[in-house]
Amino acid sequence: MTSPLRGLLGTDPVVATAGVGLFADALRDQAVAVSEADWQPPMEGTETDLARVMGDPRRVEANATAVARMTASTATLVDVVPAGEALGLEKGSFLHAGPPLTWDRASGPMQGALIGAVLFEGLADTAEEAERQLASGVYEFEPCHHRDAVGPMAGVVSPSMWMYELRDEVHDNTSWCSLNEGLGKVLRYGAYNEEVITRLHWMTDVLGPLLRQAVRSVGSIDITAIIAQMLQMGDEGHNRNRAGSLMLLRELLPGLVTAEGSSSDIAEAVRFSGANEHFFLNLGMPAAKLATLAAHGIPGSTIVTTMARNGTDFGIRVSGTGDEWFTGPALTPEGLFLGDFGPEDANPDIGDSAITETGGIGGFAMAAAPAIVKFVGGDVPFALEATQRMYEITEAEHPVYQVPILEFRGTPTGIDVTKVARTGILPQINTGMAGAVAGTGQVGAGLVTPPAECFPAALASLARAVD
Amino acid sequence: MTSPLRGLLGTDPVVATAGVGLFADALRDQAVAVSEADWQPPMEGTETDLARVMGDPRRVEANATAVARMTASTATLVDVVPAGEALGLEKGSFLHAGPPLTWDRASGPMQGALIGAVLFEGLADTAEEAERQLASGVYEFEPCHHRDAVGPMAGVVSPSMWMYELRDEVHDNTSWCSLNEGLGKVLRYGAYNEEVITRLHWMTDVLGPLLRQAVRSVGSIDITAIIAQMLQMGDEGHNRNRAGSLMLLRELLPGLVTAEGSSSDIAEAVRFSGANEHFFLNLGMPAAKLATLAAHGIPGSTIVTTMARNGTDFGIRVSGTGDEWFTGPALTPEGLFLGDFGPEDANPDIGDSAITETGGIGGFAMAAAPAIVKFVGGDVPFALEATQRMYEITEAEHPVYQVPILEFRGTPTGIDVTKVARTGILPQINTGMAGAVAGTGQVGAGLVTPPAECFPAALASLARAVD
Repeated sequence: MTSPLRGLLGTDPVVATAGVGLFADALRDQAVAVSEADWQPPMEGTETDLARVMGDPRRVEANATAVARMTASTATLVDVVPAGEALGLEKGSFLHAGPPLTWDRASGPMQGALIGAVLFEGLADTAEEAERQLASGVYEFEPCHHRDAVGPMAGVVSPSMWMYELRDEVHDNTSWCSLNEGLGKVLRYGAYNEEVITRLHWMTDVLGPLLRQAVRSVGSIDITAIIAQMLQMGDEGHNRNRAGSLMLLRELLPGLVTAEGSSSDIAEAVRFSGANEHFFLNLGMPAAKLATLAAHGIPGSTIVTTMARNGTDFGIRVSGTGDEWFTGPALTPEGLFLGDFGPEDANPDIGDSAITETGGIGGFAMAAAPAIVKFVGGDVPFALEATQRMYEITEAEHPVYQVPILEFRGTPTGIDVTKVARTGILPQINTGMAGAVAGTGQVGAGLVTPPAECFPAALASLARAVD
Repeated sequence: MTSPLRGLLGTDPVVATAGVGLFADALRDQAVAVSEADWQPPMEGTETDLARVMGDPRRVEANATAVARMTASTATLVDVVPAGEALGLEKGSFLHAGPPLTWDRASGPMQGALIGAVLFEGLADTAEEAERQLASGVYEFEPCHHRDAVGPMAGVVSPSMWMYELRDEVHDNTSWCSLNEGLGKVLRYGAYNEEVITRLHWMTDVLGPLLRQAVRSVGSIDITAIIAQMLQMGDEGHNRNRAGSLMLLRELLPGLVTAEGSSSDIAEAVRFSGANEHFFLNLGMPAAKLATLAAHGIPGSTIVTTMARNGTDFGIRVSGTGDEWFTGPALTPEGLFLGDFGPEDANPDIGDSAITETGGIGGFAMAAAPAIVKFVGGDVPFALEATQRMYEITEAEHPVYQVPILEFRGTPTGIDVTKVARTGILPQINTGMAGAVAGTGQVGAGLVTPPAECFPAALASLARAVD
């Protein structure tokens, strides 16, 4: 006679438990093989909003559309143009990184970079004068993101600076980013001494026009293709851009060496560009901006389309909630320091460069760049684990951006606010660290996450938008 | 009362077994945790020689000296010079890859490359005439290695070709390698049509002199430093040289763009060099040659200092046995094929490029280059495992050449003949594949090992040399 229970009892029982590790330990004590799956309760206070947003009938399709657009976007460098011309930025107007900010709340490096930009534009003769003007409110400033531009670190853009112009022909979008100044004492890290201003003038007078000639001469440069390649060459596209920078240089070279200009100017432009391991960052960022821009503004979508920091606040924007910012206080990165600098010198997180993670590279692709741990801290297992953890909070695996060591698995792409709220796992960001005191420059590089509160705030807004 | 056995029985017994896996299976059936260590009997017939060589009192210190010299060697690009001038090579003399070879035993790609070199030197007007001359014995040819030079694939060098000249100042050694022709129909893969000969003339007339100006203008280029960096950028230095080629280009650029010459020649030299992903191979090879040269000729040392193939034979040389070659028939690589080519089109293994593996990079550093599996075959776990297996047969971990994904472990460096004989593990080589028919060119890339018999032969010679 066959017992109805025979099938059940004929094999080892499978026990599923949730909650504290004691259950797993008890099973192990009884010699039962245990597979632990990470599980955490949702972020506090998000249960009701989560239920409402998860139940939104638009959500699944809206998110599928968002990541399909994000991963189908292209990014082609088509021109190099002055910011005044490209963005309609007028003398006395400035862009900055992160969510909106007022002078009185601006951190040291942001104030330093704005002072430097005022000096560079010739609107003041001394730093003190520039500071007085800025504090008095005679200038206008707004986020780069509000003009579809991005800027690393302080991200300050003034009308005379030159910008890379990138196009996503698939979605008919354009994005811009300033030229990279190199490392050390540079405006984007809040330095504004004479060396900084002199370099900015050289970039405006010599480098920008030569790069424009080079880009126009070679036609256009496929930035998406370079990102795909650099991930196979140990870069993650945020704090490691070595291979990307070399590939960009190679693409520009035929146009640079045949540009009209003095051979010493051309040689210096080649040397300056070749000496800068982050030369490519200012192309990777607007490429990621184009990807996230394509995914923006889809009703019901819970996909994050902006993560940006102004040195005081960290802000995110979400596809389904449009241009609303959800902010919290920027955290201070932990990592490795240059020279004699230490943790006490570091400013809270700053810059639009977290757009790389928003687009599925940077910290999300850290497994592709194990050597980065010598620059941002952590160790190789952490780098592998960071990418793998990000699959828990993303909607897609990028079809083109792949991680060789994970057997060419696509990078985790498209942060889903509901997954962050449900798991409590925060996006992993690799970042440079600016000195907290205006004028200092870079002090190190490290690892950081957004402040958790951005996500419940975004979720609440998404919940309100559900009919 | 304390039993003398109490300490022993108070913990789980540890069982060490050697031999067939049945023992491990039996232990597993009794729920005992099992760690298996690979163990294989020594290569057949090597027991007596192994015992004699292992007992050589000079061996331990000689091998320590050999790898210390190998890993302390430097490689600096100091000049670019015609082969006739650099190597004293006279018109009618040719160098080739691998161990010594006669025309009648030469494979298709070797014969094709020699025909092409005769045409290039203007010694014959047609391929048929060149072939007749070569078969009649009017020309002299000998291995590149006999002149401290190396050549990829057929490795044919004629007096009018230009060579990179590299110096190891620590050990006062010099090595040379020809310039890379790019991919496809090229001399080193046995092609010799008009396109090939025209390119060789351009390289002699334009590229070589420009590269000489560039190198002399920038002073010198640290090739060892580039190798260390490229291993952190997804290259292994034999069949993947993308990052290395870009870094080399960056170093040469300031000298190239300011070289005397027409701007169209300079632009073409920059384009040609930038378009070639294996541009660096011809620098990595002589750097590895300098490393192994430093370790060569130490009495009692069982470290391999040459692995090279001429398309017919695979030959090795060993530090302690000097310039004696130990050869066996070259195997045919297994891998991936270009276009419509297949396994039946491939020539047996050819080229001096296995000097990279001899020096601790190439296939030995495959874990640093997981993306290479798309080019040579295998999969990512194989790439990781290949490097880890090579630690079993090498004497040292390279202090400068490191693999990030293995937590910056140094590459396995210094193949020990006794370890190969004891374990039966053969060196892992990544290689290009030439078409078997003269004139074909490259048909693919793949994975190969030396024929096993080289190692017992070397061991026998080492045994004879023990007092």
